[in-house]
Amino acid sequence: MNLHTCPKWDIFEVTVSGPSEGNPFTEQWIRGVFSGANETVRCDGFYDGEGFYRVRFMPSFEGDYTYQVSTSFGVREAGSFTVTAPGQDIHGPVRVANTCHMAYEDGTPYYSIGTTCYVWELQSDEVIADTLRTLEKSAFNKIRFCIFPKHYAHNLREPRSYPYEGTPVDSRGITPDNFWQYTGRTEGNHWDFARFNPAYFRHIENCIRKLRKLGIEADLIMMHPYDRWGFSCMSREQDDLYWNYAVARFSAFSNVWWSLANEYDLMPAKTLDDWEHYADILCRRDPYRHMRSIHNCGSYYDYSRPWITHCSLQRTDLYKSSELTEEFRNRYKKPVIWDEIAYEGNIEYGWGNISPQEMLRRFWEAAVRGGYPGHGETYLDPEDILWWSHGGVLHGESHKRFGFLLDILKQTPGHGLKPAHPDWDEVCGVPDQISSPVSDYYLIYYSFMRPGLRAFRFDENSRWQVRVIDTWNMTVEDRGILSGTFTVELPGREYMAIQLRRL
Amino acid sequence: MNLHTCPKWDIFEVTVSGPSEGNPFTEQWIRGVFSGANETVRCDGFYDGEGFYRVRFMPSFEGDYTYQVSTSFGVREAGSFTVTAPGQDIHGPVRVANTCHMAYEDGTPYYSIGTTCYVWELQSDEVIADTLRTLEKSAFNKIRFCIFPKHYAHNLREPRSYPYEGTPVDSRGITPDNFWQYTGRTEGNHWDFARFNPAYFRHIENCIRKLRKLGIEADLIMMHPYDRWGFSCMSREQDDLYWNYAVARFSAFSNVWWSLANEYDLMPAKTLDDWEHYADILCRRDPYRHMRSIHNCGSYYDYSRPWITHCSLQRTDLYKSSELTEEFRNRYKKPVIWDEIAYEGNIEYGWGNISPQEMLRRFWEAAVRGGYPGHGETYLDPEDILWWSHGGVLHGESHKRFGFLLDILKQTPGHGLKPAHPDWDEVCGVPDQISSPVSDYYLIYYSFMRPGLRAFRFDENSRWQVRVIDTWNMTVEDRGILSGTFTVELPGREYMAIQLRRL
Repeated sequence: MNLHTCPKWDIFEVTVSGPSEGNPFTEQWIRGVFSGANETVRCDGFYDGEGFYRVRFMPSFEGDYTYQVSTSFGVREAGSFTVTAPGQDIHGPVRVANTCHMAYEDGTPYYSIGTTCYVWELQSDEVIADTLRTLEKSAFNKIRFCIFPKHYAHNLREPRSYPYEGTPVDSRGITPDNFWQYTGRTEGNHWDFARFNPAYFRHIENCIRKLRKLGIEADLIMMHPYDRWGFSCMSREQDDLYWNYAVARFSAFSNVWWSLANEYDLMPAKTLDDWEHYADILCRRDPYRHMRSIHNCGSYYDYSRPWITHCSLQRTDLYKSSELTEEFRNRYKKPVIWDEIAYEGNIEYGWGNISPQEMLRRFWEAAVRGGYPGHGETYLDPEDILWWSHGGVLHGESHKRFGFLLDILKQTPGHGLKPAHPDWDEVCGVPDQISSPVSDYYLIYYSFMRPGLRAFRFDENSRWQVRVIDTWNMTVEDRGILSGTFTVELPGREYMAIQLRRL
Repeated sequence: MNLHTCPKWDIFEVTVSGPSEGNPFTEQWIRGVFSGANETVRCDGFYDGEGFYRVRFMPSFEGDYTYQVSTSFGVREAGSFTVTAPGQDIHGPVRVANTCHMAYEDGTPYYSIGTTCYVWELQSDEVIADTLRTLEKSAFNKIRFCIFPKHYAHNLREPRSYPYEGTPVDSRGITPDNFWQYTGRTEGNHWDFARFNPAYFRHIENCIRKLRKLGIEADLIMMHPYDRWGFSCMSREQDDLYWNYAVARFSAFSNVWWSLANEYDLMPAKTLDDWEHYADILCRRDPYRHMRSIHNCGSYYDYSRPWITHCSLQRTDLYKSSELTEEFRNRYKKPVIWDEIAYEGNIEYGWGNISPQEMLRRFWEAAVRGGYPGHGETYLDPEDILWWSHGGVLHGESHKRFGFLLDILKQTPGHGLKPAHPDWDEVCGVPDQISSPVSDYYLIYYSFMRPGLRAFRFDENSRWQVRVIDTWNMTVEDRGILSGTFTVELPGREYMAIQLRRL
């Protein structure tokens, strides 16, 4: 037994001291090789400021490991450690498990229930604490957020700090009426894009670590267009430095996902070739093959690209969103995650003012069709703290009902649903591995439709456990065991579902 | 001045006696020529039973007319009459007025607010009286209904009588579970398709006349698939007899519209060639060129056909219906009438169980985009009397709010709205004749979206009368006269609208 231990899927980190003169970010390097019986991982480390260089490793197997660390400045280190059992409720990184569904590495199904708080980690300590408390009480198991700060309506304040050394553009003249005139090309920023601010990244890592404790995946948005500082318009060389630095720092966190961009198609400074290039960096430099995607505004990326693990979708139609889950499932044969299906709230924008009922409806539409929904909230706030960007506390009603949905999804036999169509005018999910026309399990959702009854015609010998689910009021009504041909009476309200399980 | 008078757009009818032996329907004919200073109309009459032959004429101009009637049995009649001013609130037949909008012949704009009661006129006297009372209190100015009786779920009873001499199939064994096994091909009907039942048609004419008094257009559905009697599967020759007979009887009613079929694409016995043939009969035999269309189930007819005056649409998508108004406007350049956008109710079928809120939302979506909505209602009823088929009384909530919509539509400057897009995330109508990018009138509808405010940026010298409309609660809030750049606060509820009128 080694003196040093590290739980499986946690981080084993080696720190060495080295030069702080010159530009350590570009002039020095540190690398590690970590070897156990079942894996050997080679990875880059990073300069963390004040003469400290670190290299991180996430072990995927229990047992004894050795490591060698080498540097550009002549320091070498070697040693050994033992990987112990993972902590309680730690299931490992999320993987694509079977075409359209996901599981943690230990095989536990992962039914993604996401939310978006674009720059929650760049707010004050108080707001960050609020966010974490809110998340802890929630059913969310994924959160999307940006590495770079955000400049947009309701996002005019300065972030808590900056990713680079330098000084930002003067923001004193920015108002809700003129903010859109400020872009990444705006004059007045003075950054050294070759010198990171390690404290900025350490702070983000702390946030990722806290999410991990809560069992929440950190869907990191690496680039985005809502920028007044120029971070969206760096050169290819500067971008490469950023990508490599971020990957070296973040990839050992088991709960990290990579989202190349939010609304990639709104970034005129980047080409498709750029995105493929960044994807290539990820594929080469992230030894853990974390989930990878890229998120659209008006036009979807080609999700058939081999590096993309799942569709990360924003709806492009005001009326139809997660109802289109099957189209994406069929086209791409990858998990379909509706990361933006509009936001519950009341702000001025059409993407940010749907009702809690409509949000929950879109959640169920996605889930029953074998896709995965994502939430967001944009209620006008006197302090301009909106969950969608800042985190904080939730004011809405839909989020209270996601845990109920998650509980029902977890009852799916096998692993994940697929859409079936016993009838054209209802939404029905059956276990995804079913290939026969008749399933042993049906989850039928009625969306905004309000049938007063549903007749079923099964063969006379079949016995079914029948439950009527009110998805909004979160009630489950047991209707007993029914056989053959039977009618299920329904209350004629919206948002009802029927669950059938063959006995 | 003649002894005989007839108000403009009313019916001048000439009756002669003739043979009743043999088959007068096929062996005899009667025709009329009606001449005034501005028109000469030649038309066919019809045999009305018991030796009576009639020919009908609808005058379109005031002044003196003469007529000559000839028959196959040697009787001739001639005479004269004076066409007087139309009755109060009589505006003449509805016409396409300007591409996508309609007007009565006297120029009064016609904003169609329709409903569907497929066989209301074939119910008991009591139910018919209920229907007419309901219609009188309503805002409906068009109703769709069938000439032939209907066989379908909730429509298993016998009609009050039959259009032909003969006896119907025995219906005693028909239940909600087996009704779909009965089709027009079912054995057991014994009809003489060459002998109409004139009383059946006289009754329908009485109903058309009562609708006319209420200012309601009678959108006659000439054929439909929901049949157990064989009326949907007659031969071409039998169909021709029917079409000619119906046109001779009905076309002089100013409020008649022709709908060739409900769900033409569910009638396997009919081909596209058949529909074009029936349209040809209509074009040749209806001298008044009443509105003509044909209604779909799953696949739309080619509305570019010259005989089609307007698109009579059923939605083909569970989620999007009247939101597609622009696509039909742009493709066909004809009035877009959403005759079926699903039904308010709680029956078992997805087309028949939307909420009143959703129905009203679809109404406003259609109207603000420059289309015209149609209503229907399908609430489960212990007597199985559902407005959608039987008429009777309304149980729903949406219909109470159509008069409010109609009042607002009548405030449109000029004649009819067209969709405009000052912003992507709201639905906006402007007067259809506007060709400049800035309008003098905006009707902005927020559907299920719930903005808390809307900022407008007009030039500084423009002055706008601003009203906030709650389409569900039917309130109009005057926000006064605002200029240039201004913000309109909204309650963050669904179903709100803003009306802007430039002063």
